[in-house]
Amino acid sequence: MAKEITARAVNYSQWYLDIVRKAGLADNSAVRGCMVIKPAGYAIWENMRDQLDRMFKESGHVNAYFPLFIPKSFLSKEADHVEGFAKECAVVTHHRLMNNPDGKGVVVDPDARLEEELVIRPTSETIIWNTYRDWINSYRDLPLLINQWANVVRWEMRTRPFLRTAEFLWQEGHTAHATKEEAISEAQTIHEIYARFAEDYMAMPVIKGSKTESERFAGAVETYTIEALMQDGKALQAGTSHFLGQNFARAFDVKYLTSENKEEYVWATSWGVSTRLVGGLIMTHSDDEGLVIPPRLAPVQVVIVPIPKPSDEIMSVAERIAERLKELGIRVRIDRDDKKRPGFKFAEYEMKGVPVRLGIGARDLKQNVVEVARRDTSGKESVLLDGIEQHVRSLLEEIQDNLFKKAMLFRQEHTSWVDDFDQFREIINDKGGYVYAHWDGTAETESKIKDLTKATIRCIPIDQEKESGRDMLTGAPSSGRVLFAKAY
Amino acid sequence: MAKEITARAVNYSQWYLDIVRKAGLADNSAVRGCMVIKPAGYAIWENMRDQLDRMFKESGHVNAYFPLFIPKSFLSKEADHVEGFAKECAVVTHHRLMNNPDGKGVVVDPDARLEEELVIRPTSETIIWNTYRDWINSYRDLPLLINQWANVVRWEMRTRPFLRTAEFLWQEGHTAHATKEEAISEAQTIHEIYARFAEDYMAMPVIKGSKTESERFAGAVETYTIEALMQDGKALQAGTSHFLGQNFARAFDVKYLTSENKEEYVWATSWGVSTRLVGGLIMTHSDDEGLVIPPRLAPVQVVIVPIPKPSDEIMSVAERIAERLKELGIRVRIDRDDKKRPGFKFAEYEMKGVPVRLGIGARDLKQNVVEVARRDTSGKESVLLDGIEQHVRSLLEEIQDNLFKKAMLFRQEHTSWVDDFDQFREIINDKGGYVYAHWDGTAETESKIKDLTKATIRCIPIDQEKESGRDMLTGAPSSGRVLFAKAY
Repeated sequence: MAKEITARAVNYSQWYLDIVRKAGLADNSAVRGCMVIKPAGYAIWENMRDQLDRMFKESGHVNAYFPLFIPKSFLSKEADHVEGFAKECAVVTHHRLMNNPDGKGVVVDPDARLEEELVIRPTSETIIWNTYRDWINSYRDLPLLINQWANVVRWEMRTRPFLRTAEFLWQEGHTAHATKEEAISEAQTIHEIYARFAEDYMAMPVIKGSKTESERFAGAVETYTIEALMQDGKALQAGTSHFLGQNFARAFDVKYLTSENKEEYVWATSWGVSTRLVGGLIMTHSDDEGLVIPPRLAPVQVVIVPIPKPSDEIMSVAERIAERLKELGIRVRIDRDDKKRPGFKFAEYEMKGVPVRLGIGARDLKQNVVEVARRDTSGKESVLLDGIEQHVRSLLEEIQDNLFKKAMLFRQEHTSWVDDFDQFREIINDKGGYVYAHWDGTAETESKIKDLTKATIRCIPIDQEKESGRDMLTGAPSSGRVLFAKAY
Repeated sequence: MAKEITARAVNYSQWYLDIVRKAGLADNSAVRGCMVIKPAGYAIWENMRDQLDRMFKESGHVNAYFPLFIPKSFLSKEADHVEGFAKECAVVTHHRLMNNPDGKGVVVDPDARLEEELVIRPTSETIIWNTYRDWINSYRDLPLLINQWANVVRWEMRTRPFLRTAEFLWQEGHTAHATKEEAISEAQTIHEIYARFAEDYMAMPVIKGSKTESERFAGAVETYTIEALMQDGKALQAGTSHFLGQNFARAFDVKYLTSENKEEYVWATSWGVSTRLVGGLIMTHSDDEGLVIPPRLAPVQVVIVPIPKPSDEIMSVAERIAERLKELGIRVRIDRDDKKRPGFKFAEYEMKGVPVRLGIGARDLKQNVVEVARRDTSGKESVLLDGIEQHVRSLLEEIQDNLFKKAMLFRQEHTSWVDDFDQFREIINDKGGYVYAHWDGTAETESKIKDLTKATIRCIPIDQEKESGRDMLTGAPSSGRVLFAKAY
């Protein structure tokens, strides 16, 4: 099996597609740019969703659901927003089909034209703020801390499974606050949750920062981002949290009465992560043998394989171990197939990224040991049956930890500090990765650098010491380095 | 608050809308026929979803996700299916908006017309079976037991929150099998799961049966249904499970190689329940004081209210009780508001349907008791602090049980056995409820009865003794009674 995966060094882009296909994560569909998320891929997304949902709820958020459709006129109400989204919208114009009067099949019924066209939500700020107008009267109604799990559609021209698809699944938080400070603090809280989720669960190190004006969300005053580095040296924007100021409150006339009985516009945030994270997960950890999933998000954490095939004795040991692992909250599966050879199965579980594999053979059992194989290092060892559950539990933690450290090491090796533009261009072209460089703070320079190198400013990092310097291209003064990279 | 709810006896339909609005379950949206599911309503749906999802997974199903869009031509491939859904479809015809050349706002860009229009899925059989063609080659690929949680759109003309909305949330299972028997058995397994969920979790008694041909799902060979009775004497179809035969396999050319190397069409089922269940829940249990939610699905099962307001002593007791309830897996909330009066709060929690309310007052604490109030009977009692957690746990079970019994009693009182058509018409018009009557098995008679009385055959019950008789309208022979009612 593994041989059918293109090596990363040969063609990274094809390697990614091979992993997605061979590990059964997603499939193309009959609709341009839309993927089918297969069970193995969806199970990873479910684990991500459940953990994020817990984190949102622990920080006081609740879920709700708003319509899929947005009246066309809503999009126009916030000037930047319409500019950002109108060009990639799926538009519903009719509400009925009819039998084709000329013969077979069905056609759109011309009499069923909508008075106002509806756009499939590319994001829900407009429909939600139009609703918030009815929900918010006084400071007592604030804050509103609402999240939505939903599908959205952006008619992208070039798509790639998980990373960029016309339809994708995501969560979008939309909060309303009485003060600017509170809204900014909310956006930062979520930014922190996203970073914690990426690092502690996805084992994917991220740089936290704010976006430059030209990279901000359409309608935001400030966009906080987490940026991850993929194995091909390109950055992936993994989650963004926006402070929207009063832009949407003004556009949809959402005011509240303060405790002093004054009318004020409401302050807003919005924030989202999507199935794109599954793409990030794949590209951060996987190797030429297949998918690698960090244990905390792995749908199956441990697989037990009877060697060479199921027998009563082996299966009774397998059942006992599985039972005890389940009691420890570990997701375990026993392979009961009695047709395929162990070697074939091993390659299959390697391909699918199961973190730990236990091989139980009759010979090993005589010595009271089982073979424990870990996916991350391909290491194998014989472990005493007695206490195997605790061993596996620690091993899963160790793998989680190791994957993070490995990704962090990769990032360190692919981070450069550059002051000279020629060197910058060379590094961006050849080595790739992150480059910290000085920038004069203008959109013109940012755009020039992008045109010359395809690198963009991923963020103005938060955890970065201020350092005065000169823009590498223009020589104009700069008060600190920003993070450049080519990006997905 | 409660006074603002219309009494059921005065106007049942308005009562329902009042509950939905005053308990904060849903709101109208700017898009015709689409509702906003508010946090209190969504939390109920989340609990339903999580429990159903567990039941599906325990019976071997996995989740996946298929595109929102269906190419128009797919709908036409199954003749009954297109007949059933084409007339209420949202149709996407364009993929871009542009600035209005005549002035303000945006218009549809005429250059961005799709080659083939896309329909927003009203249900996903067609796109899924088009995909299954690639996934299924041999009997080794079967069965496929896949479920999807998704939004769907049916352009209904008359809508009501939860019960009938243009967009709704649901799950749709789509399974593929090697044999007819296995597919039928799958449809029945799910039918059983739906019935168990309705009765054990929603505390909503249901009649299990099959649909008559004219009431079947568009494209099904057999439709199994669970039918619940609402307090106005109308039936609610609460969940359906379809045996689809080989209809979709033929339409999308999905064949498999048997173990004898013969090519056969694949057998199919599909099944779904939706946010309509939230409407059923409301209408089964709620009363003129507000919402009533069975404890197993209540987002908040117990609320602790300090009387008359929070004090250090009261709050420390409240925290201790809440902690212990949480340890028992009970969802509990402490009301920390120090402005509203207890009476106001009591009415509010009554309206919102919290099953158990604990009132903690300084005077009661001196006697080591708390006041325990239950939503279902409005009963109150003083209970010793010592062991209060166990008391509350039993009480929640008792309430769950009592709600089911109450609903079952209502159903018994509203079920009639009728042999005479005039009497049938009278009961359907005046008393309402279920009527078991003989039917000659023809679509003509079924349709006549519907025209004359608005009653439809809800199902041919499964748990019903065969009994020979004569159709109440035509006098033609019948081999058993079927279940009639007016329905939502």
